[in-house]
Amino acid sequence: MTTDATTPRLPVTAIIAPGWDLPRWAAALRAAAPGIDLRLWPDLGDRGEIEAALLWKQPEGALEGMTRLGLAQSLGAGVEHLLADPAIGPGVALGRAVDPEMTIEMVRFVVHAVLAVSVDALGYRQQQAAGRWAKRDVPGGALAVGMLGLGELGASAARALTALGFGVTGWSRSPKAINGITCLSGADGLDRVIATSGCLVNLLPLTDETRGLIDARRLAQMPAGSHLVNVARGGHVIEDDLLAALDSGHLASATLDVTATEPLAPGHRFWHHPRIVLTPHVAADSTPETMAPILADSLRRHAGGLPPRDPVLRDRGY
Amino acid sequence: MTTDATTPRLPVTAIIAPGWDLPRWAAALRAAAPGIDLRLWPDLGDRGEIEAALLWKQPEGALEGMTRLGLAQSLGAGVEHLLADPAIGPGVALGRAVDPEMTIEMVRFVVHAVLAVSVDALGYRQQQAAGRWAKRDVPGGALAVGMLGLGELGASAARALTALGFGVTGWSRSPKAINGITCLSGADGLDRVIATSGCLVNLLPLTDETRGLIDARRLAQMPAGSHLVNVARGGHVIEDDLLAALDSGHLASATLDVTATEPLAPGHRFWHHPRIVLTPHVAADSTPETMAPILADSLRRHAGGLPPRDPVLRDRGY
Ligand SMILES: NC(=O)c1ccc[n+]([C@@H]2O[C@H](COP(=O)([O-])OP(=O)(O)OC[C@H]3O[C@@H](n4cnc5c(N)ncnc54)[C@H](OP(=O)(O)O)[C@@H]3O)[C@@H](O)[C@H]2O)c1
Ligand SMILES: NC(=O)c1ccc[n+]([C@@H]2O[C@H](COP(=O)([O-])OP(=O)(O)OC[C@H]3O[C@@H](n4cnc5c(N)ncnc54)[C@H](OP(=O)(O)O)[C@@H]3O)[C@@H](O)[C@H]2O)c1
Repeated sequence: MTTDATTPRLPVTAIIAPGWDLPRWAAALRAAAPGIDLRLWPDLGDRGEIEAALLWKQPEGALEGMTRLGLAQSLGAGVEHLLADPAIGPGVALGRAVDPEMTIEMVRFVVHAVLAVSVDALGYRQQQAAGRWAKRDVPGGALAVGMLGLGELGASAARALTALGFGVTGWSRSPKAINGITCLSGADGLDRVIATSGCLVNLLPLTDETRGLIDARRLAQMPAGSHLVNVARGGHVIEDDLLAALDSGHLASATLDVTATEPLAPGHRFWHHPRIVLTPHVAADSTPETMAPILADSLRRHAGGLPPRDPVLRDRGY
Repeated sequence: MTTDATTPRLPVTAIIAPGWDLPRWAAALRAAAPGIDLRLWPDLGDRGEIEAALLWKQPEGALEGMTRLGLAQSLGAGVEHLLADPAIGPGVALGRAVDPEMTIEMVRFVVHAVLAVSVDALGYRQQQAAGRWAKRDVPGGALAVGMLGLGELGASAARALTALGFGVTGWSRSPKAINGITCLSGADGLDRVIATSGCLVNLLPLTDETRGLIDARRLAQMPAGSHLVNVARGGHVIEDDLLAALDSGHLASATLDVTATEPLAPGHRFWHHPRIVLTPHVAADSTPETMAPILADSLRRHAGGLPPRDPVLRDRGY
């Protein structure tokens, strides 16, 4: 490939995402960044040549010997695998994936989960099974929604829920102002959003500050008969505490797309709990064809000496 | 009550809706139309005095002797009970209920049903029951939605679905243009919307033209593996044909809020069919407090010689 002054050479790039369809990712990326020197896990060639790595749950040691690594880019929205890898030194720029297609997929998943609570899908399903025809007292539009996390995904889901007539209160680290949404931050804000939400949605990143956030104390703060939707990370929730809150009847239901250990162990109580709706971490997926142009843009920015499109800040942990 | 030139006297008004909470309706209406002479079923007093009737499924003969009746107003979105009542003569103006609160309730119900198809809630529910952790091939945002009826409810639901990333094709009697929605009409239009929809939503009124519309022929036109959502009237669907389409596997699921006979008979096959999601006609309800000001407005318009806010046209049947 020739380079000239206006188009800096794209970095030599490795894709490391075991279990994913790497040829499909490579094809999409080559279409978006013609001429790119791509190395697909596990055939990375000379690791000393690799300048950028596109990563999802890379195996331990996968980045060893990448002495020229300048950019570590997540292929998903989460970045725990970047921050936890000792082979990614402090001089390596970190990026995460923000893709409008992934965002709207998450919005649909969250809106479905919240609407299921609003129309009491679980209650009507039980009535159908029992052959019972009777109107139930459902929360409808009066369901107060709490949104933990007002980032790319949380704010988008909050806006969509507002458009459907719900009152939404959101919580973030830094204070925010979003039209039509009550925005809170800080410890007081957390107390308030938890205590006032009929349906609490978790879209926080998993960091030292948010790990185990939803524990017995927080669950007790939730209103009696309220509902939890966790689409962020299993590590946000203390699972035994959640089961206790469901068993006591304090919590009416939990919709869980993520669990502390994935796949969920056979025999785990979540599988057959009547108040748990479980999905196998599928709320929003990375799609090669829509993500590739975004990744290519970050690679080009990196080549030009710029930070990636959606940088990860080490000090805040996301 | 005194009347003057600018405020014509409100009509003497009966509310006939057996089984509904009539005192609550009366209180809401009195708040919205102070001084109104209201008669609650079955204590109508002298029927010869009644000038307007607010109706939901009035018993046969309930309107007999109402020689001064000038306005028959439905308390719900449907108007079959107005058009079928021989006691409502051709000189009586007909109105139906259009309430933004009812509309958004229907929008939430329809969006929930379509999103359940989009995220394959039924498939994941079965996987959970089987203790199986595996990503399914779900339609997501690629689900093509067809909307039969683009009136108050259908157009609102179509818009909300468009905002969630779905492509929506709608069908109505008169040609329409709605931003972002493919609008069809006529027999060709019906063929096309049915043949191209992965999820077909019915929000038509029940008329001579639409009764039994969804029959074996129409179901066969739907794509293999597609889904039906009926939130309009049970009479739109030939139930044996629907069961056959589900049993053969041609139709993947049916979400039914309405059935030909309500309540659904015990033992009806709909109750326990694994591909049917059943609710007891609860998609969108009339609420006295939000509907009363709208009804009061129609009564005032009638007193002033105007047609009701949302008139029913006899010749088109809705
Ligand atoms: N289940 C799935 O399929 C799936 C798919 C994609 C993503 N996810 C999860 O969703 C998470 C969120 O993604 P995103 O793209 O929306 O992330 P994001 O844009 O980084 O937003 C994170 C939000 O959380 C807030 N936050 C972070 N730490 C906080 C703290 N200690 N206290 C209060 N608020 C805090 C942030 O506050 P500021 O606004 O003040 O920064 C921000 O509003 C991801 O980290 C991932 O775990 C799950
Ligand atoms: N399940 C529940 O809880 C519930 C609650 C409320 C309402 N509903 C049902 O929903 C129905 C629709 O309500 P709405 O307020 O949206 O009614 P609407 O405003 O009168 O709209 C009816 C729509 O259907 C179209 N249409 C009527 N006849 C047609 C025909 N022969 N061919 C093609 N299109 C035809 C109309 O076309 P034009 O636009 O050309 O007129 C219009 O777009 C009600 O009639 C009721 O049965 C059910």
